[in-house]
Amino acid sequence: MDQFATKGSDPSFLTIEQWARKIEEALERPNVVGPIRNIRDDDRREFDAIFIGGGAAGRFGSAYLRALGGRQLIIDRWPFLGGSCPHNACVPHHLFSDCAAELMLARTFSGTLWFPDMTGRTTSIKEVVDLFRRGRTGPHAVMNYQSKEQLDIEFVLNASARILDAHTIEAAGEIFRARTLVLALGSKPIRLNTLGRDLHGIHDYATLVETLDREPGEAIVVVGGSKTAVEYGCFFNATGRRVIMLVRDRLLKLINDGETRTYAIDRMREQGIKILEGATVSAILGDAEGRVARVVADTPSGELEIATDFVFQALGERPRSRLAVEALGVAIDDSGAVVVDEQLRTSIPDVYAVGDLIGAPMEMFKARKSGAYAARAIMGEKVSYRPSDWPDFLHTHYEVSWLGLGEEEARARYRSVVILKMPPDNPNGLDIGLPASDRTMLYAMAHPHMSGFQKLVLDGKTRRVLGAHHVGYGAKDAFQYLNVMVKKGLTIDELAEMDELFLNPTHFIQLSRLRAGHRELRSL
Amino acid sequence: MDQFATKGSDPSFLTIEQWARKIEEALERPNVVGPIRNIRDDDRREFDAIFIGGGAAGRFGSAYLRALGGRQLIIDRWPFLGGSCPHNACVPHHLFSDCAAELMLARTFSGTLWFPDMTGRTTSIKEVVDLFRRGRTGPHAVMNYQSKEQLDIEFVLNASARILDAHTIEAAGEIFRARTLVLALGSKPIRLNTLGRDLHGIHDYATLVETLDREPGEAIVVVGGSKTAVEYGCFFNATGRRVIMLVRDRLLKLINDGETRTYAIDRMREQGIKILEGATVSAILGDAEGRVARVVADTPSGELEIATDFVFQALGERPRSRLAVEALGVAIDDSGAVVVDEQLRTSIPDVYAVGDLIGAPMEMFKARKSGAYAARAIMGEKVSYRPSDWPDFLHTHYEVSWLGLGEEEARARYRSVVILKMPPDNPNGLDIGLPASDRTMLYAMAHPHMSGFQKLVLDGKTRRVLGAHHVGYGAKDAFQYLNVMVKKGLTIDELAEMDELFLNPTHFIQLSRLRAGHRELRSL
Repeated sequence: MDQFATKGSDPSFLTIEQWARKIEEALERPNVVGPIRNIRDDDRREFDAIFIGGGAAGRFGSAYLRALGGRQLIIDRWPFLGGSCPHNACVPHHLFSDCAAELMLARTFSGTLWFPDMTGRTTSIKEVVDLFRRGRTGPHAVMNYQSKEQLDIEFVLNASARILDAHTIEAAGEIFRARTLVLALGSKPIRLNTLGRDLHGIHDYATLVETLDREPGEAIVVVGGSKTAVEYGCFFNATGRRVIMLVRDRLLKLINDGETRTYAIDRMREQGIKILEGATVSAILGDAEGRVARVVADTPSGELEIATDFVFQALGERPRSRLAVEALGVAIDDSGAVVVDEQLRTSIPDVYAVGDLIGAPMEMFKARKSGAYAARAIMGEKVSYRPSDWPDFLHTHYEVSWLGLGEEEARARYRSVVILKMPPDNPNGLDIGLPASDRTMLYAMAHPHMSGFQKLVLDGKTRRVLGAHHVGYGAKDAFQYLNVMVKKGLTIDELAEMDELFLNPTHFIQLSRLRAGHRELRSL
Repeated sequence: MDQFATKGSDPSFLTIEQWARKIEEALERPNVVGPIRNIRDDDRREFDAIFIGGGAAGRFGSAYLRALGGRQLIIDRWPFLGGSCPHNACVPHHLFSDCAAELMLARTFSGTLWFPDMTGRTTSIKEVVDLFRRGRTGPHAVMNYQSKEQLDIEFVLNASARILDAHTIEAAGEIFRARTLVLALGSKPIRLNTLGRDLHGIHDYATLVETLDREPGEAIVVVGGSKTAVEYGCFFNATGRRVIMLVRDRLLKLINDGETRTYAIDRMREQGIKILEGATVSAILGDAEGRVARVVADTPSGELEIATDFVFQALGERPRSRLAVEALGVAIDDSGAVVVDEQLRTSIPDVYAVGDLIGAPMEMFKARKSGAYAARAIMGEKVSYRPSDWPDFLHTHYEVSWLGLGEEEARARYRSVVILKMPPDNPNGLDIGLPASDRTMLYAMAHPHMSGFQKLVLDGKTRRVLGAHHVGYGAKDAFQYLNVMVKKGLTIDELAEMDELFLNPTHFIQLSRLRAGHRELRSL
């Protein structure tokens, strides 16, 4: 391929494979490899922005700024661009969630068809973690390659940045100056604040991937009740562990439709997860080697002691704002988030902040969009960014996706709420073989109640979609696009006109077709 | 639940479970069970339409007509509504395609993690067929329940219809009259026209499910090269059979983007499928018991004889128009399709036709929409239905989805075509661990080139999306909604503003974000 032959004459050109080897080496021996520098020294222009942090926010902000004709520099302590997501956060979580989905299927069909007998069998967590550790440099390498060769991003990696002032950074023994500074420092997991929190065997999503050195035992305590707690809890459960979830408040209260939430939680319970709501950890007790031995929990039915050698904490994340506060004095809020306006400007002139550092929602779309919006603001555009009405999702053993209003919220706000759902209310309850679609077909045929749940919430008066909810597989991507349409006023009549790709995971188009003929809409 | 208690006083009320038992019984002993009649004898109104056939087209047409305030009757020879799709067509195909996806994963990770050792192992086709046969009455029952209890559809099932004239039908010993007649008779698989075509062991999608009585041997010949041939061929291959595909023309020429098609076919070859293009069956030879023994094929490299006991023919479908031609004299075209205008009217006054009976595209969306449009026309609305610019998909071991133009077509029509794709062109070829998303994470980590391929085709001048293409999992549903947006003129800038649900199967939003800043768009 010709385009690579010409790249070959550039001495700094690395193939994706060469990048993977370099990143691996740098992760093992950061000091031996030293800073990885990609700066066009022949370009005499001032940097329009230095991004401190090359994660999702910093990298997408840099790409956007570059595309707008500006000049940027990323400085990152890791030897790769892309940040924590592909290294120890969202990407491994997706691998673990894939394993949870596959293992639930294997356990459900244990000993039938081609599935192995899973009775009483515990599968390795460490092998999956090791698979990830070996595999993650691939995506890292793609992002370095893409950033350098395709996006023309300048960077210094494997180097920490020292902020001298709002325009000046020291990194890798050099001084860099820029018109603006963009803080993209990310967030880190909040840790338990109880006795025994430093014992060996207490993990969060980051340390699980980075430091797990032995196979967890047969019981795992998960502390937390939101996305991360559930995603990892379901994975541990699927490996055959006894999982006990200690949830301070209510499990998965972020799912805003009652039936959808119940369906998701019922399936978790059915898989054997023990859920204790209103429960907190009062202490973690260790053995003689400093390893977790027991968790003491305060629960509504009294104190509970659980024997375990593995605790997973998922208590949310805290913005990494300390460095920026100390160096620049940027204002932060109570949650530790750097305060920004809709142009992503902090309290300090010429200093911007993006991504998890500016607080909730700590989601990928916001990281990337805030980065891009900061770039546009820096390049002179008048922008206004506030995330609103985004779609959302999480993994149990399933993919759970939602947007807009839940049924209860809709009924509180609208007079004539119409519900289209699958399965319908019926005397058999859920056990009826629909919905069915890709990756739920085996369930639909043999264990129908496991084939999913979905619901469309409509306003009968305007015929508009108010909310959509899905538990199953293969609908998550659709919710991105559907959400845009719903925000623009999507009606049941427009849905009924669409061309479905049958068997579609969301049955929304066909359910709409069955009811759209009614002048007075009816539920289904 | 109260709504069921009140239904209990209706003597004709059946729960979904009771429907399932009744349908099973009727399928085994149709004459003993006799016609299944749901007619409101107290309703003295004339039927606005009798639908002959209660498949997708007839059932959705009926629901729509009913919702508009009309009165309809469905007559169907089967004891369930929904037609061939859930009985022996699209639904079993989805089950087999799920198995193909699962088995490819199990073979790829054979003997590692929790996956069994699949080396040299052939898994049963008949067990999966039997699973389907047992499971299919569940969805059938839901549709009967929904049609009767929720959609107020009137029907006579398990009874054949005799057309007396354009307003009069005889069925189950009764005469029914209606203002109009809607022909919804569907289609049937085209059979091979060669010596030996009646030997035992020659199947199509319908007979596979209905009559398979023994386990196919180690080699399977698939005749055909489009959706059905590939979907079943990949399933047979995944069970461990040696699959030889005889393709008259080019395999999967309906995939209109060259790279996407190549990626999909390369993966089929990698799984061991032997593809012979420009090949036709010249004869099928049998053994002493009248069973397939050998297939003789004409190929570009000469005559080929293949020892096999199982041939799968997938040569397309032919509309079931004979009955309507004989009884009414409706006009048909060369393909046997009943000719209709945009109001779905045939050549005979007051006779309409819908679904597969009116020819290509024989897709679910067209069946359902044509049914609904016929209902609207019958109830006095001025409608105009012609399918155009629909999204499309098929299964290999993967889900392949596409919409709009392929790259080659786009370059022929537009001056400045811009491509965003994943993986990018790179010196490692495909083997780089991206794209990654739900259900491809294990591949992304350990066998990166298997993690999928995707491409967005844009017009650099207007910045509009011209086409989208995806091989992987979990994007099919999204293509339904994306297609509507593309038809309305979706631009890269609008995509870049959306909120992705990361890791999204289509990386289109983030790829757009990386390039949208450019005034002159560039490929990625």
